[in-house]
Amino acid sequence: MKRNAVLVDGVVLNGPIIDSSSGEKFVEDVYRILMNELVYKASDINQKVCEWQEPEQLKKLLDLNIKDNGEPHEKLLQLCKNVIKYSVKTSHPRFFNQLYAGMDHYSLAARFITEALNPSVYTYEVSPVFILTEEAILKKMIEFLGWKEGDGIFSPGGSVSNMYAVNLARYKYCPDIKQKGLSSAPRLVMFTSEECHYSMKKAAAFLGIGTENVYFVKTDDRGKMIPEELENQIQRAKKEAAVPFLVSATSGTTVLGAFDPLDDIANICEKHKLWFHVDASWGGSALMSQKYRKCLHGIHRADSVAWNPHKMLMAGIQCCALLVRDNSGLLKRCHSAEATYLFQQDKFYDVQYDTGDKSIQCSRRADAFKFWMMWKALGTTGLEERINRALALTRYLASEIKKRDGFELLWEPEYANTCFWYIPPSFRNMEKGPEYWRKFSNVAPTIKERMMKKGSMMVGYQPHRDKVNFFRHIVISPQVSREDMDFVLDEIERLGRDL
Amino acid sequence: MKRNAVLVDGVVLNGPIIDSSSGEKFVEDVYRILMNELVYKASDINQKVCEWQEPEQLKKLLDLNIKDNGEPHEKLLQLCKNVIKYSVKTSHPRFFNQLYAGMDHYSLAARFITEALNPSVYTYEVSPVFILTEEAILKKMIEFLGWKEGDGIFSPGGSVSNMYAVNLARYKYCPDIKQKGLSSAPRLVMFTSEECHYSMKKAAAFLGIGTENVYFVKTDDRGKMIPEELENQIQRAKKEAAVPFLVSATSGTTVLGAFDPLDDIANICEKHKLWFHVDASWGGSALMSQKYRKCLHGIHRADSVAWNPHKMLMAGIQCCALLVRDNSGLLKRCHSAEATYLFQQDKFYDVQYDTGDKSIQCSRRADAFKFWMMWKALGTTGLEERINRALALTRYLASEIKKRDGFELLWEPEYANTCFWYIPPSFRNMEKGPEYWRKFSNVAPTIKERMMKKGSMMVGYQPHRDKVNFFRHIVISPQVSREDMDFVLDEIERLGRDL
Repeated sequence: MKRNAVLVDGVVLNGPIIDSSSGEKFVEDVYRILMNELVYKASDINQKVCEWQEPEQLKKLLDLNIKDNGEPHEKLLQLCKNVIKYSVKTSHPRFFNQLYAGMDHYSLAARFITEALNPSVYTYEVSPVFILTEEAILKKMIEFLGWKEGDGIFSPGGSVSNMYAVNLARYKYCPDIKQKGLSSAPRLVMFTSEECHYSMKKAAAFLGIGTENVYFVKTDDRGKMIPEELENQIQRAKKEAAVPFLVSATSGTTVLGAFDPLDDIANICEKHKLWFHVDASWGGSALMSQKYRKCLHGIHRADSVAWNPHKMLMAGIQCCALLVRDNSGLLKRCHSAEATYLFQQDKFYDVQYDTGDKSIQCSRRADAFKFWMMWKALGTTGLEERINRALALTRYLASEIKKRDGFELLWEPEYANTCFWYIPPSFRNMEKGPEYWRKFSNVAPTIKERMMKKGSMMVGYQPHRDKVNFFRHIVISPQVSREDMDFVLDEIERLGRDL
Repeated sequence: MKRNAVLVDGVVLNGPIIDSSSGEKFVEDVYRILMNELVYKASDINQKVCEWQEPEQLKKLLDLNIKDNGEPHEKLLQLCKNVIKYSVKTSHPRFFNQLYAGMDHYSLAARFITEALNPSVYTYEVSPVFILTEEAILKKMIEFLGWKEGDGIFSPGGSVSNMYAVNLARYKYCPDIKQKGLSSAPRLVMFTSEECHYSMKKAAAFLGIGTENVYFVKTDDRGKMIPEELENQIQRAKKEAAVPFLVSATSGTTVLGAFDPLDDIANICEKHKLWFHVDASWGGSALMSQKYRKCLHGIHRADSVAWNPHKMLMAGIQCCALLVRDNSGLLKRCHSAEATYLFQQDKFYDVQYDTGDKSIQCSRRADAFKFWMMWKALGTTGLEERINRALALTRYLASEIKKRDGFELLWEPEYANTCFWYIPPSFRNMEKGPEYWRKFSNVAPTIKERMMKKGSMMVGYQPHRDKVNFFRHIVISPQVSREDMDFVLDEIERLGRDL
């Protein structure tokens, strides 16, 4: 027992109780493992993308059980190695499966800093640096939208950003809803395309609007919202005596990567006085490119925009901005609860910097910082170069698909999504009846299973509208090269030609 | 130009375009800085808790502007040093300002791994390890609630967890609300205490319930919900022909750290068939302690529980579980949108492991993993020891406050919150009229300003109900010792005795 020990409830209160040096050593050891096993191998195409294990088998390999007593470092380090070994390498140049990929070292370094500092971004007092970097990056993003001014907040995902937009729109329509709720409100209707992200339905359900009150607007054969159909849906809602309040256009749809015609949609929103939201979670990053920003022509007319730098810009999950054109404090009025223990008005500094009450969260991560660090390190031109290259690679892949026997490009890519079928030789001369489509719909899942078990690459698939299962291939990372595009097609042929 | 270069749109597509070794070097350099400047100094009381700068001054020091061209490493490394220098050291043993603090090395190491792996936890296919560790930790947490079975999901914060509970409760009451929304629903009313977290109001606003439909139940002088008052409020709602649907009790209130009487509240919920939610975001960690888990007696009867291991258990922001007693798939039925591109049903593995559709998010961080790693490393007994010690230190602080002239303990602490006034000598013989309280309310803010500018410690303050500004002191970290408690009181006296 220590000298002069003070005991309360049998607990010695003198001095710290943990051995920091042991913990520090553990951090160093884990860091070395992850650098060697992961970061230095991130772009090595000789590594597997994944080391597939069935769930029940992986449970055993990981030793998931937690015990009353802690485990020794040696065992924990082995566990960390296994965690890395059996995780999907989303930074691998051949991970084409999702709308995120790759590894940006500047963002990663920034994330290590924020993890070690463990800030919560609600007040300037506890998070001075991260309040200011968030403000700076929001301002910069707003500049790229073409707005003169605006407001914004980083949220835990594009889905949540879309929810913010819905809530802002209805608050703008009727501020009383915040206090009174929807039970005495008329039936509110929102509009989005049938190609929108599924979070629009989740938003409608969660916010009490109801999924039936999302009116889905038809798209053209490229997956773009048809403005005349939007007008028709608005008329339909009005005829039903419902109240239209929001249109959500999509810039970069999830499956096709299509961009809605924002300018035409803005005209309709203006005419009907509807809130104009753009879900640019995926496609917003095209704004960084002089060549591709035309895909979002008209975005300067939006009332709000969701844009996720963790997707195309590789800022790391989660990094999602909700940007709002209003600069009168709408975001705060709509979401604030004015907690007196956190947002005291008698602080000794300018409490305008206490931005937390704009958020639906209380604790909030410093997600903006990593993107600020990346952009600072690479400059606008560095980010632009990445976008241009990813989209050039996509075009290369599409052109190769068109050249190859047994491949069918389903849509000319507009962004980084390439959607295509691989048709194994045995299918090529079959009659395209119901039996064909039933059998053919198994081709992509089977090839997917084989690539997962081999660990050679990951490409997603899905059925969509009238098309049975097809591959959706996404290019993001600057580590990806033309050789990887050729590999994808060769590998699909290798894995699927016997089907 | 490289050999056999393929050009598309003027972009060379061969080989990767970035120099990984330069990026890797940057990660190594930043890591070394943060270990030396932050992690190794985390528990050093000779360091400042914060290096205060006014916002305008800090903007200049940080060089926030982003340019067209990237900045050199040398400059970026200096910037990282400044970010660390001017950030609040939330791991400092004298950071008592929020409901989180300290540094757990196991969690930190785990966070470095997840940042480098950059997973998104929605499908087993892309996130096998993190799906399984989330499942394992949820199961373990459910065990500590005393439930035989249950379900759950990690969310981006206690506020969002509370929103989940509200949505589940109304879905249970009437599943049609998901499709139809609230406009044709009766007026739904939820109940919580006047000491609840402000997120309950945010939840009511965001979910379309309306803040007026949160009926606040009176608390006793310890800040605990009075069951008879809850019964009265429910009767009031029924008389108004509104529909009660949810009671949210609080285990560990934000300011006082009070625990509502769960068993009595459960009786009332049962009687009226109301969803019983417990916001144990702060206090849930007492469940780890044999000594203190009685504070949450009755929690096994809850329908849902919010519990944030990032608070008392130091898992790092964000780490927040929403636990649900229902095991019939309610969480998924309530929140799912069944995106066919993500949650394909024709996958080659058991798609029950694709848990993402339980969430309102799409991309979702692997927040559960760091907690799993910590718990694995420390064992239940290690976590219990921390809780017991933090609460023993709190009791020590309270007893010292009672002994000292000029300090007034406002409530006997029930958890880790100690609320007290410091009364400078010049106030001690003043008559306690309006003038006294007006002047006295400036004492805590002035001392706070002085401690921030000195950087010696951080303790929060707020007015609350009939009490003008008082300090709220929180103990969490095992790095904190009895000496730090003595320091807090000495330092407040030093900073405030001339007021």
